[in-house]
Amino acid sequence: MSILVVGSVALDTIKTPFGSCEDELGGSASYFSMAAGHFDKVKLVAVVGTDFPKKHIEFFESRGVEVAGLQVADGQTFRWQAEYGFELGEAKTISTCVNVFEHFHPIIPDQFKQSEYLFLANIDPSLQLEVLDKVGGSKFVACDTMNFWITRRHKELLQTIERVDAFILNDAETRQLTGEPNLIKAAKWILSMGPKMVIIKKGEHGALLITPEFKFAAPAYPVELLFDPTGAGDSFAGGFVGFLARCGDCCEDSLRLAVIYGTVMASFAVERFGVRRLAEIDTFTILERLKELKKLSEFEIQPV
Amino acid sequence: MSILVVGSVALDTIKTPFGSCEDELGGSASYFSMAAGHFDKVKLVAVVGTDFPKKHIEFFESRGVEVAGLQVADGQTFRWQAEYGFELGEAKTISTCVNVFEHFHPIIPDQFKQSEYLFLANIDPSLQLEVLDKVGGSKFVACDTMNFWITRRHKELLQTIERVDAFILNDAETRQLTGEPNLIKAAKWILSMGPKMVIIKKGEHGALLITPEFKFAAPAYPVELLFDPTGAGDSFAGGFVGFLARCGDCCEDSLRLAVIYGTVMASFAVERFGVRRLAEIDTFTILERLKELKKLSEFEIQPV
Repeated sequence: MSILVVGSVALDTIKTPFGSCEDELGGSASYFSMAAGHFDKVKLVAVVGTDFPKKHIEFFESRGVEVAGLQVADGQTFRWQAEYGFELGEAKTISTCVNVFEHFHPIIPDQFKQSEYLFLANIDPSLQLEVLDKVGGSKFVACDTMNFWITRRHKELLQTIERVDAFILNDAETRQLTGEPNLIKAAKWILSMGPKMVIIKKGEHGALLITPEFKFAAPAYPVELLFDPTGAGDSFAGGFVGFLARCGDCCEDSLRLAVIYGTVMASFAVERFGVRRLAEIDTFTILERLKELKKLSEFEIQPV
Repeated sequence: MSILVVGSVALDTIKTPFGSCEDELGGSASYFSMAAGHFDKVKLVAVVGTDFPKKHIEFFESRGVEVAGLQVADGQTFRWQAEYGFELGEAKTISTCVNVFEHFHPIIPDQFKQSEYLFLANIDPSLQLEVLDKVGGSKFVACDTMNFWITRRHKELLQTIERVDAFILNDAETRQLTGEPNLIKAAKWILSMGPKMVIIKKGEHGALLITPEFKFAAPAYPVELLFDPTGAGDSFAGGFVGFLARCGDCCEDSLRLAVIYGTVMASFAVERFGVRRLAEIDTFTILERLKELKKLSEFEIQPV
């Protein structure tokens, strides 16, 4: 199977209580690619500026990511500068310079159009719809979004959701989109809009997978060395879609395990800046953490 | 085995978006007793005023709760009036009239002093210490607290923690007490103060059990019919301590399952006002929900 991701590639400047980085390789599609790349072939569609370091492109290639869809446009690469406080909660954005991203329209190379798995990373839902029009016949389509688009592109976002298999969002976004505080009820509302499943990411509290047939609650990996939470959600999506592409089916057991693989990839992403840790780990390390999560949530019933 | 609980018995007046109740039987010890009573014999120590309805005392007795330690003092029963908003998050307290609780000192009837399981429900840590001095030789002691005592009785609270086996608190209290935003690190700090285990209740996000030997993450039951969140934590404690008393050991498997039984009892408590739902359910209903939680969190490893 092969996975197509359309999203952002950015240069991030981040400060946390534990350190700082400048012009670090970031963006939703970067995190997704590095996570999903552990499972299957990833094809990247995004845009960068002429200032984008060649070493990052080589880095993608060295990790097996196909970069034929990475447009280089005149101008500067999308840049995001942010700071995290002591609690490493929500990032405080200092500046967002969309730069070349402002006029971005995804161009899908012909050889990418038959991708069986498609991930629409967090970009303008109008662009997500453009991609859906250009890429036909994917076996499985997942998409992500953010608070900004829920407010500014509400109609387009609902049109996108209608056409995807899996909608991945966090708990705050779920409540914002639906106006419903109860996450289970909110998920049911989203399911009624069209997708086959909703995945609600809850950060340190794990993730919920909700389908009309079953619910699955995954614990978060108990990360003590949380270093930089940036990209956790995209890495989660990378593990989730990556595992599904690798195993080739969407049965209940595979979906449950895919959420766990997503959890594992997110837990690695936050241990270092950018995609550094995701690039460093191997299959053995991933499997070890998977076993830890199994142990973490296991119990045996014994009636009273 | 038998369980001794020392805490509050109150008359609650509560308004939620779904309805309201007046002078409803409430208080930490009431919820705990009604939940733990499904597992083992519960002995109640608390104080009420002369206005406390006789029917509530008969209700305790009808549920097998021993009330020899329920003092009736001159004056009014502890009353709490609160309102929950649309999100059913934190209660907005309208009034707290401690009344007879102001001068409460637990009197432990002789026949209660040899209880093997002791739960110090949320009361002034100075009183929790008094109980620990009066009740010797319990096999297992658990305690709860709240934000108010963390601020006002910090020293006494730490002295209490030092002497208990299990410290049960919620995530906000954990962060408040330790000043550490990372719950895993915070739990380790608490463990270093003396208890053998920490249980962190996270409401809709489940619960964490942390010991020096292992960690366990329990999902929350996906309650759609959340009606009144009052007493969820005390009901959790009732299920947790109740199951441990029933099974008679504290091995890892039992502790994990005890957290799940706690989760189950909390999920029932929030379905109706007060302890009504806890009094209504039977062993079969409890076991069914236990199985649902098992299914909710189950996954099988399949390497990539």
